[in-house]
Amino acid sequence: MIEDTLKPPYYAVIFTTQLSETIEGYYEMAEKMDELAKKQDGYLGVESARSDVGITVSYWKNLEAITNWKNNIEHTEARDIGRDKWYKKYQLRICKVEREYGFEKK
Amino acid sequence: MIEDTLKPPYYAVIFTTQLSETIEGYYEMAEKMDELAKKQDGYLGVESARSDVGITVSYWKNLEAITNWKNNIEHTEARDIGRDKWYKKYQLRICKVEREYGFEKK
Repeated sequence: MIEDTLKPPYYAVIFTTQLSETIEGYYEMAEKMDELAKKQDGYLGVESARSDVGITVSYWKNLEAITNWKNNIEHTEARDIGRDKWYKKYQLRICKVEREYGFEKK
Repeated sequence: MIEDTLKPPYYAVIFTTQLSETIEGYYEMAEKMDELAKKQDGYLGVESARSDVGITVSYWKNLEAITNWKNNIEHTEARDIGRDKWYKKYQLRICKVEREYGFEKK
């Protein structure tokens, strides 16, 4: 899904991941965290794709919303399990979306 | 591939795409554009994944580098063909990367 209704400025969290061999339980947890994220104040949307690496970009109203989601207890527990079991490597970037352009074939 | 050596602040272009039925020539052109992007001044790296949607995040030193790449003639021609043939829909976001965290299992 492509988020096409957001108006800059807002924030993006770019989360790029490489999974380990052990992915038991990963997809269930990822879905659970997606559902939980959607319920947070300031959540605006998400885009996600996976090939060799996975890229999930979540969109947020402001930095406070991102910090609150980072400190959410269930999310913190999931992240701890992720670092222990599922992730071989990841990079997380917090970005301010300054401009945006869209195209859709009519 | 995960880019793990960049130091904020720098810029990210998040390009989320949905392809049309007509993808003849798309992957060749995407690879050609990746190669060309790497040669531009201010290019820092790229991360890419595709499932239902494709997400390509390219990283740049500053806004000027992004504008120059946008105006590159070969890139402009490829974009025109893309809008005509390959893309059903896309969203492009220009973002300032403010903070970054990495994890790697040892």
